[in-house]
Amino acid sequence: MIDETHKFLETLGLRARQVERALTALLDSTLRDDEIARPDHLLAAMRHGVLNGGKRLRPFLVMESTALLGGPDEAALRVAAALECIHCYSLIHDDLPSMDDDDLRRGLPTVHKVFDEATAILAGDTLLTMAFDIVAAPQTRLPDRSKTELVLSLARAAGLGGMAGGQALDLQAETMPPDEAGIIRLQAMKTGALLRFACESGAIIADAPTPQRQQLKRFGEAIGLAFQLADDLLDVTSDSQSLGKATGKDAAAGKATLVALHGPQWAREQLSGLVEEANALLEPFGEKANTLKTAAEFIASREN
Amino acid sequence: MIDETHKFLETLGLRARQVERALTALLDSTLRDDEIARPDHLLAAMRHGVLNGGKRLRPFLVMESTALLGGPDEAALRVAAALECIHCYSLIHDDLPSMDDDDLRRGLPTVHKVFDEATAILAGDTLLTMAFDIVAAPQTRLPDRSKTELVLSLARAAGLGGMAGGQALDLQAETMPPDEAGIIRLQAMKTGALLRFACESGAIIADAPTPQRQQLKRFGEAIGLAFQLADDLLDVTSDSQSLGKATGKDAAAGKATLVALHGPQWAREQLSGLVEEANALLEPFGEKANTLKTAAEFIASREN
Repeated sequence: MIDETHKFLETLGLRARQVERALTALLDSTLRDDEIARPDHLLAAMRHGVLNGGKRLRPFLVMESTALLGGPDEAALRVAAALECIHCYSLIHDDLPSMDDDDLRRGLPTVHKVFDEATAILAGDTLLTMAFDIVAAPQTRLPDRSKTELVLSLARAAGLGGMAGGQALDLQAETMPPDEAGIIRLQAMKTGALLRFACESGAIIADAPTPQRQQLKRFGEAIGLAFQLADDLLDVTSDSQSLGKATGKDAAAGKATLVALHGPQWAREQLSGLVEEANALLEPFGEKANTLKTAAEFIASREN
Repeated sequence: MIDETHKFLETLGLRARQVERALTALLDSTLRDDEIARPDHLLAAMRHGVLNGGKRLRPFLVMESTALLGGPDEAALRVAAALECIHCYSLIHDDLPSMDDDDLRRGLPTVHKVFDEATAILAGDTLLTMAFDIVAAPQTRLPDRSKTELVLSLARAAGLGGMAGGQALDLQAETMPPDEAGIIRLQAMKTGALLRFACESGAIIADAPTPQRQQLKRFGEAIGLAFQLADDLLDVTSDSQSLGKATGKDAAAGKATLVALHGPQWAREQLSGLVEEANALLEPFGEKANTLKTAAEFIASREN
């Protein structure tokens, strides 16, 4: 087990470095056309929002689920980079004064603090747009059918019925606290949808049969739930310094979370159940799935 | 000529009603999954930002350029709706207090005035995301190759090297006025890129040969330049009531425009030249192109 954890952390770090190199290259090469002027300020804000030392969990999941099903590494890396652009855009916008009003992100000042609000809004918009550019570009060597499916799944995961809709519900929740079912749905949209896409995309990239795609999708759903529970748990049990962002904000904002409803002990039990479920879903893949299984444990027990 | 103008205005109105019906249906049907909660507030903000009685010039150009090249009407309508989602997202974000800070748009209060800033940001994000959903969805009956090309062209037109990059340069321009070449480049990105895509997309939808695609693209560039010149001219010659939004803002903000540099008379001469160029580009298509030719004249001489 300790060996597996070690191997997982090594792979996570390796994948993070890969995707950061890819993102750096993509941001450098986005302006191919000498005819256009260079919005340097905007580009700097995008870099600040993207190249900020995150764990790159979503890219890891794209790449590992693709590898599990024997799909092409190079295409997985580009889809991983696209997904990370969307994740980072959402962080930039969520941190804005009119949204969660956060000054710190991963221990660094947020984009609107370093630059300004207008530039932060545009940096998010541009990263979101760039994600679809990356997937559809000729450099992503996949059949057009797979690209169309990836664009569609990614747009749905990020849109009204996914992440953005979940964020809207989360803002509403501050004045109209949802019931337990409402919290679960909100979180499945806000954080679950992108994590589910991360796992499911591997099956699209590898052109895997439907049953495998369903398994990966359900695995993504389980770790999505675990991720959010662990996040809510951290907000009540951690301190700002070790987390690199503000803590205790949920309680201060009177925000309804499952941890607030049922307490930390209940949350820890739920987390073990979700890890078991995630592992069971990957059982058919045998030892090849060990890294992804360990990822589920890591997500459930992470400390930052 | 009067007959042509009449026919053009009729077609413009017809296309506008078509795309508004399509957008209404798309916004109604976006939440297909009963499992998710309904972010009603966000959806209402999206509707306010989209169904606001615009001229629907970009959708018109998508549909007419597709029809000119014999492409499928139904697919053109969906791409037109997607493009309008992107245009409307950009208006919602441009109007924000931290950007152009506009209270009025087409004679109505802007989205952040009716709702709030956070909801306006999310409504824009979601419309941008939805555009790619619409293009990639199975209901858009086009080969996957065409969809991939449309997603890529649309993302480039809207992204760092297009509209969003142009808006960033425009914000920078308030403190660092660009020279004439800089203004032309900025405007080609900020407003030109989407208009160019509108015309070029017809060739992608119709799967037209490269020379025709190039002609449509150059036509789009010419009317993009005309559109911006006419806009800058209106800002100095019109009044707020007939325009339905604030005027004189460019001069008040010390914003550099070609009209400010060279005066209204020069601008009117440029506009005639651009209309001639646009017409010449469509000459090979004969009478079939009359509606698009009249569109170029309309864009150059519009009064709101």
